[in-house]
Amino acid sequence: MKIFLRLCYIGVDFHGFQIQNNCRTVAGELKVVSDKIFGVPCRISGCSRTDAGVHALDFYASVEPLDQTFNRIPCERLRTIYNFLLPEDISVIEAYPTTSFNPRKSAVKKKYEYRILDGGQKDPFEYKRVYRHKLKLNVPLMNKAAKQLIGEHDFKAFSSTGSERATTVRTIYSAYVTRCDKYVTFFIEGNGFLYNMVRIIVGTLLYISDGKLNESVISNAFTECDRTLLGITAPPDGLYLSQVTLDKEYPKLNGYD
Amino acid sequence: MKIFLRLCYIGVDFHGFQIQNNCRTVAGELKVVSDKIFGVPCRISGCSRTDAGVHALDFYASVEPLDQTFNRIPCERLRTIYNFLLPEDISVIEAYPTTSFNPRKSAVKKKYEYRILDGGQKDPFEYKRVYRHKLKLNVPLMNKAAKQLIGEHDFKAFSSTGSERATTVRTIYSAYVTRCDKYVTFFIEGNGFLYNMVRIIVGTLLYISDGKLNESVISNAFTECDRTLLGITAPPDGLYLSQVTLDKEYPKLNGYD
Repeated sequence: MKIFLRLCYIGVDFHGFQIQNNCRTVAGELKVVSDKIFGVPCRISGCSRTDAGVHALDFYASVEPLDQTFNRIPCERLRTIYNFLLPEDISVIEAYPTTSFNPRKSAVKKKYEYRILDGGQKDPFEYKRVYRHKLKLNVPLMNKAAKQLIGEHDFKAFSSTGSERATTVRTIYSAYVTRCDKYVTFFIEGNGFLYNMVRIIVGTLLYISDGKLNESVISNAFTECDRTLLGITAPPDGLYLSQVTLDKEYPKLNGYD
Repeated sequence: MKIFLRLCYIGVDFHGFQIQNNCRTVAGELKVVSDKIFGVPCRISGCSRTDAGVHALDFYASVEPLDQTFNRIPCERLRTIYNFLLPEDISVIEAYPTTSFNPRKSAVKKKYEYRILDGGQKDPFEYKRVYRHKLKLNVPLMNKAAKQLIGEHDFKAFSSTGSERATTVRTIYSAYVTRCDKYVTFFIEGNGFLYNMVRIIVGTLLYISDGKLNESVISNAFTECDRTLLGITAPPDGLYLSQVTLDKEYPKLNGYD
């Protein structure tokens, strides 16, 4: 038995999702509250390790009470109790017991968006929620460059050192940029993302728009696997994990056994 | 000569407007940037002393270079330079030299709004931007109570100790509550506000809605001048200085002399 959690959070005051010593993290807050609700130590897993400052509009996590003596609180009250006990910057959308659930393995598709205010625009009420870019962005050029991302590629060049994964090959289903109201937003959907991958892609698209890099760097980076060919790692402020597709529906149990 | 500044800011990372030692304040940031722009020490004044965590959608300030040797940078570039040098959480809407301008004395009317998410609603993306109230609010009852605020009254009971003003009499032009989308918002306009006055009014209206106080406390507090009759001081998170009316237009000079 595991607790299935669907949640959203704003990343400004978190050092990312994953539990760390002496740092406020989303999983850390979930653990404190879960341990309290179930009265026994719980193990928290998440569908993604978002970085410090990155936001999630949609996120899946599992809670596993590590001792069978846990409190059997009424299932229909779980969501309300989580929301009551969790801090203001995390909200639980769904919470119920399910048979088994591994959020990392179950997340078969993820969609991110990256929000930008360009041309020197300033909006204090979007503080730490968007990235401000001084120059006006060339959206058609960014879209032309982004098209190269679609398909199956080796994204080794698009990851920060420190990420050790069996394979650096990922499939991107869509990647495009739109200008809507005062925002320029980059959307990308894929079967998985390497450490800092979306932020390096955005940093590269910004450099291409500004004329600091030619759009051919993207396909070159696929073949040469060289991080130094690409642009900066864009700041976390504008990045939102916006949609996660699970492999299947996880059944809602009415009890814990 | 003074520089006329119209600005907005989000209060989450500020210890209010007024300069304080070892605290990040709006006036502190304006001073650092003004001293740099004009190359001489500058004096900063504001139309209001907003508290720590309070936001301003509309705010007026003046900058006075304290030495006549200041840099004569082109007036038409002032706003752009301020926005370039100021941090992300302050934005300058207008900046120009004017003959004389005392923002505090010039502000003849101020309008505040206080944003609430009631009934246990949670929205992480409004973190530190609204106040969350557990119970569902009784908007008609709050409006009935708020009506008593309109007119000229002694608001001594509606201020925190530590505020020393010649008079505690203020005139309120409008005070009402609306429910729109998921928010309940309280609006109040007056010729001036005492220290914590809006937050005490909001805390009192919340207590009246929850049935912890009778609506008659407001008129009783006017006659008895007793802070303890009223509700809590509501947290700063939901409070916005939303509109400031100046006594007259301040002329835009093309130069500094």
